[in-house]
Amino acid sequence: ENELSDLALRYDLTVPLARVIANNRNELPRFFKRYQIQPVWRADRPARGRYREFYQCDVDAIGSGSMLAEAELCSAICDIFDELGFEDYAIRVNDRRLLFAVIDASGIDEDLANRAVVVLDKLDKIGFEKVADELKAIGVSGEAAGALIGLLKKIEGKSNSDVIRDVSSFTSGNETADESIRDLESILSLAKSDKMAIDVSLARGLSYYTGAIFEVILTGDDFSGSVTGGGRYDGLIGMFGKEKIPAVGLSIGLERILLVMDEREMFPEKLTDSPADVMVALWNEDTIPHALQLAGKLRESGLRVLVYPQPDKLGKQFKYADQVAVKYVCILGESEIEESSVSIKNLATGEQQSVPLGEAVAFLVQ
Amino acid sequence: ENELSDLALRYDLTVPLARVIANNRNELPRFFKRYQIQPVWRADRPARGRYREFYQCDVDAIGSGSMLAEAELCSAICDIFDELGFEDYAIRVNDRRLLFAVIDASGIDEDLANRAVVVLDKLDKIGFEKVADELKAIGVSGEAAGALIGLLKKIEGKSNSDVIRDVSSFTSGNETADESIRDLESILSLAKSDKMAIDVSLARGLSYYTGAIFEVILTGDDFSGSVTGGGRYDGLIGMFGKEKIPAVGLSIGLERILLVMDEREMFPEKLTDSPADVMVALWNEDTIPHALQLAGKLRESGLRVLVYPQPDKLGKQFKYADQVAVKYVCILGESEIEESSVSIKNLATGEQQSVPLGEAVAFLVQ
Repeated sequence: ENELSDLALRYDLTVPLARVIANNRNELPRFFKRYQIQPVWRADRPARGRYREFYQCDVDAIGSGSMLAEAELCSAICDIFDELGFEDYAIRVNDRRLLFAVIDASGIDEDLANRAVVVLDKLDKIGFEKVADELKAIGVSGEAAGALIGLLKKIEGKSNSDVIRDVSSFTSGNETADESIRDLESILSLAKSDKMAIDVSLARGLSYYTGAIFEVILTGDDFSGSVTGGGRYDGLIGMFGKEKIPAVGLSIGLERILLVMDEREMFPEKLTDSPADVMVALWNEDTIPHALQLAGKLRESGLRVLVYPQPDKLGKQFKYADQVAVKYVCILGESEIEESSVSIKNLATGEQQSVPLGEAVAFLVQ
Repeated sequence: ENELSDLALRYDLTVPLARVIANNRNELPRFFKRYQIQPVWRADRPARGRYREFYQCDVDAIGSGSMLAEAELCSAICDIFDELGFEDYAIRVNDRRLLFAVIDASGIDEDLANRAVVVLDKLDKIGFEKVADELKAIGVSGEAAGALIGLLKKIEGKSNSDVIRDVSSFTSGNETADESIRDLESILSLAKSDKMAIDVSLARGLSYYTGAIFEVILTGDDFSGSVTGGGRYDGLIGMFGKEKIPAVGLSIGLERILLVMDEREMFPEKLTDSPADVMVALWNEDTIPHALQLAGKLRESGLRVLVYPQPDKLGKQFKYADQVAVKYVCILGESEIEESSVSIKNLATGEQQSVPLGEAVAFLVQ
């Protein structure tokens, strides 16, 4: 541990999972699903929504080669984004095999395929013209670049079935392409969401993907880049063990989603407006135990309760409650304690009323 | 970033918090509470429940010098450990000022005080004799060591009020000691828990504590060491800004608690026994959409639902459900689909019955 080269921070959760599966195959059930939320690190240049340390929220399904696994993951994504309140998301779906078949059918040299994929992946950032230019710059012939761009322009904005028809005819005779198209059709029909669109230019950065790949983008103009990505990696676990085991997984970009939800003010009011529902004021030193007892009862009922942290002028306590946007303040002075009541002030209306101590919870929970 | 010496991993969450408070004092309310859960790193020698990367769960209350802050934190600890199902925990409480007053009153040289604290902190691990030996080894006179050990033996196992009486008389005339004793009495009376015991040998490792300190230990014999610790650090924020701001906080050791809960089998059955409540079996390729639809409905009702991930022999599917300890399996074959029913098998009893599709949720939720 004295050499810098010996030190590394966790890059993702997928490769470690693959290792665990390979090493514990006999102890794990044949089909194994797990979710995992943990920070990972990238030496990327930081930008809006792109950090060097960030949390990855992973879901993986190990052991099945059926497209049902992809379909279930995509359906789960829809549930998550619907639940969070997003309406403008789309799931772009592709297959790494189809991607390479399209590149091959364009007439691009096999030696240049990997570099062409990197260029193609930039399509939504730089557009058709620049992709064509960059393809030529890496040595792709003008004819091949033209064929590829021609296909992409032709299918732009078309329905999934039209895209499938056009791409099928473009890759005609390539059996791997036909197989991957059948898989994509399976996924689309099983997941049954109008949010899913085939995008043959989608590549995903990681090279361990072997089949279907997908990513979630927000179609509003306030955030570019993906907020969730995943795909099938049937070869990865085999790298760490004897057995080749099919697997598919996704990774949700927590910080990017939080960033957009924050900017769009999508969080429920209760989470953002106030640290508490009720503040219990302190009358004087002697009444603190009564105040704490009341706070305890209110908390038991599920209310979020703030106790003013030291005896102070009541005016100052109200001012503080107002500043942190608590709606109700409970006051237990000597007379209230004697009468087993509590004065409850609604800071929004200014109204203050005396409530029997036993009814305080009911009054505040409403 | 090319030098090893420039790189560091987060050590704790308290110092970063102090920085944030110091830098944003004017934007934050006068009293500020926050909780934060994040991994931190230590170059410790790993052991059972002691890892080099672990999650710290912090709660801090900034801005108040009142002992109410300590009392509320200790009450929160009790709520947490009660809720988790622990019965054998204790909160050891002390005050750094009292600790040094006791050392002073023993006749230990001021120059040796910090080293004596380190020795004293090992009391519950090494016992009275070895503490006396180690004190002498660092240069403490036999008389002073004897006085200190004498006090500790005298108060061992006594009630809080007896400990306070004996320690008061031992530190007699030391005003700082008297003040810290009054603070401890405040905390004990406000927090009102029979789990709290004064332990004048408690030191806590970190030097930034200025007043009350506390830690939670499990009194069963299966785990030594603390599972939560904290205290008052009124000087720390002032190190990063102009203003001295009182603060108190605690840190919960998540992994240690999980370790003990796992070994003692304290987790609710539902969390450990099975990955799901129900498994939906697949009859054949054509019926998959029906199976997925049923799974969706069951999930909407809050059930945890596993869909068998590919069409397979029914016997194999039952075997798998049994292996992962799912209690119910739903089967939607052609005849069930025709009759809008579902066959539900209880794997525990072996019983299988046909239920109208619309009543499946009610049947399974029970």
